[in-house]
Amino acid sequence: MRFAIDAMGGDHAPQALLEGTLTAAAAMTADEFLLVAMPETIQAIPALPANVQTRPCGSVMGMDESVESLVQKKDSSIWIATDLVKKGEADAVISAGSTAAQMAAATLLLGRLKGVTRPAIATVLPTLSGARLLLDVGANADCTPEMLLQFAEMGAVYAEQLQGVSKPRIALLSNGTEAHKGNKLTQAAYALIKESGLHFIGNREGRDILFGDYDVIVCDGMSGNIAIKSIEGTVAALMSMIKHELTANFKSKLGAALIRDGMYRVKAALDYQEYGGAPLLGIKGVSIVCHGSSEARAITNAIRLAERCVKSEFVEKTAAAVRTVTAEG
Amino acid sequence: MRFAIDAMGGDHAPQALLEGTLTAAAAMTADEFLLVAMPETIQAIPALPANVQTRPCGSVMGMDESVESLVQKKDSSIWIATDLVKKGEADAVISAGSTAAQMAAATLLLGRLKGVTRPAIATVLPTLSGARLLLDVGANADCTPEMLLQFAEMGAVYAEQLQGVSKPRIALLSNGTEAHKGNKLTQAAYALIKESGLHFIGNREGRDILFGDYDVIVCDGMSGNIAIKSIEGTVAALMSMIKHELTANFKSKLGAALIRDGMYRVKAALDYQEYGGAPLLGIKGVSIVCHGSSEARAITNAIRLAERCVKSEFVEKTAAAVRTVTAEG
Repeated sequence: MRFAIDAMGGDHAPQALLEGTLTAAAAMTADEFLLVAMPETIQAIPALPANVQTRPCGSVMGMDESVESLVQKKDSSIWIATDLVKKGEADAVISAGSTAAQMAAATLLLGRLKGVTRPAIATVLPTLSGARLLLDVGANADCTPEMLLQFAEMGAVYAEQLQGVSKPRIALLSNGTEAHKGNKLTQAAYALIKESGLHFIGNREGRDILFGDYDVIVCDGMSGNIAIKSIEGTVAALMSMIKHELTANFKSKLGAALIRDGMYRVKAALDYQEYGGAPLLGIKGVSIVCHGSSEARAITNAIRLAERCVKSEFVEKTAAAVRTVTAEG
Repeated sequence: MRFAIDAMGGDHAPQALLEGTLTAAAAMTADEFLLVAMPETIQAIPALPANVQTRPCGSVMGMDESVESLVQKKDSSIWIATDLVKKGEADAVISAGSTAAQMAAATLLLGRLKGVTRPAIATVLPTLSGARLLLDVGANADCTPEMLLQFAEMGAVYAEQLQGVSKPRIALLSNGTEAHKGNKLTQAAYALIKESGLHFIGNREGRDILFGDYDVIVCDGMSGNIAIKSIEGTVAALMSMIKHELTANFKSKLGAALIRDGMYRVKAALDYQEYGGAPLLGIKGVSIVCHGSSEARAITNAIRLAERCVKSEFVEKTAAAVRTVTAEG
């Protein structure tokens, strides 16, 4: 199998991408790895193993750069890495750069699956009950009910194929658990998903997300973005407060030393790096989105995830699951 | 001043409402308190001080009961308590019961302020930088850009009058900090608020909420609900994980004992009970919404907040601030 890695995207690029790829390459000796990077980055890379090659790019899409500029930057790392998949030189692309640019490159170069109104970005969340899937988290800020149904269908395939869940429990993110709660969008989506044949378990609220009493939770990209960033921000704020208290005086420092192992386990349980990333859903090809702050371990895990996507024929199975053909929303 | 207290609403009703009222009544001897409760509850109440009276109700609105049934339950505690304000027998109403029912009773009995399209529910959030205001959090799941502008105008009055902030910093909750980010609603609201003359500081993301780099953050009720419940759920999940680790073995228990004071301070910093509640915004009268799980201390603080709302002529000042007259959204 061949993997195209956008070595320029992400907070810790190119170092984390390079290290993560080298770790994967050492274990997956039968596979090939193509690192897409700026010429000066490539020059600085020491000798590479036989199964890792480089491909030069001429620019990098900024994290906050408008996706409109992507078509002007066909020499950008994400465009070239995605194009390697299109040209059949790679089986999957992995990036920790601008998600919007990655989605745009995938849509333009690889295309949407037939019947899919809008591809989605899913996030694998660490919860108290294990890894769970939340989508959409940003690709589609304005959604139709039919799009939420498709997110449910695509999310179900993800849970089945990549998380090994049979008959995944599908939930809808809303402002209350009762069927009548929500806004116009979620109320209409509720009715559609209920009739879809999926194992729909109804609405879940923001407070339910981290408890994981579901397998897949769907929402529009704006709500999903607000939810995961609120969770991230709360973890960061709480940890910062706790750290402040634990270093306040000698007694608390002593206490902190005694509970260190436990606190590491708490941090590890909430560590998204374990999951590596998630594939774009609804795209004719495998494009793995990694968190912008991914370190080497997350990249290695993302490569492993890409491998599983290709082996499990995830794209083909997603295409088969999306039964709803809707007009452009 | 006279306060009507819905003694039947909330997770800890009637005990928390009764205790919270008695604490306030002991300190505010010149004021009068009207406890609205079921006859059997009133019978069970021991002797009350001279400035606390009771008023009987015949039913209670359930937390998840559809607001449509409110008009059939004009003997409910929230209806009767709000009606006391309408009849001039009380200056403010306080409830920890169904927020939707409280809003409906306030809208039907007290009415909206002139020019206000939809009244809003605000939440006072404990953040790393102090108390901050987020609205709307549930009254309006579907909003227009003009409604978000009015939320900003009303929230600014709240911050000025009740939190003593001059020239409050107004932010818009979105999925990115740049002006072009967001969905159709927030993009249009961004333009409106920017032109409003308010001190608009732009978009903030979910991860920014608990850091408090703003005074008022506005959003539609669905997004607000998702944000605050995601924050609540994350605090609960993290605290549960930490508690589990701290009681895992002798060493961690010893460590836990040493850091107990610090952990209490973390909990206290995130304690919404300190803030009591928040008034409904855009209503012709003072109706204080308390969190459903309010304990006695939160109720006492809510009564103090009601007093400040009345004294500061909060309602009149809100009426003056809402300059935008819009069609019903």
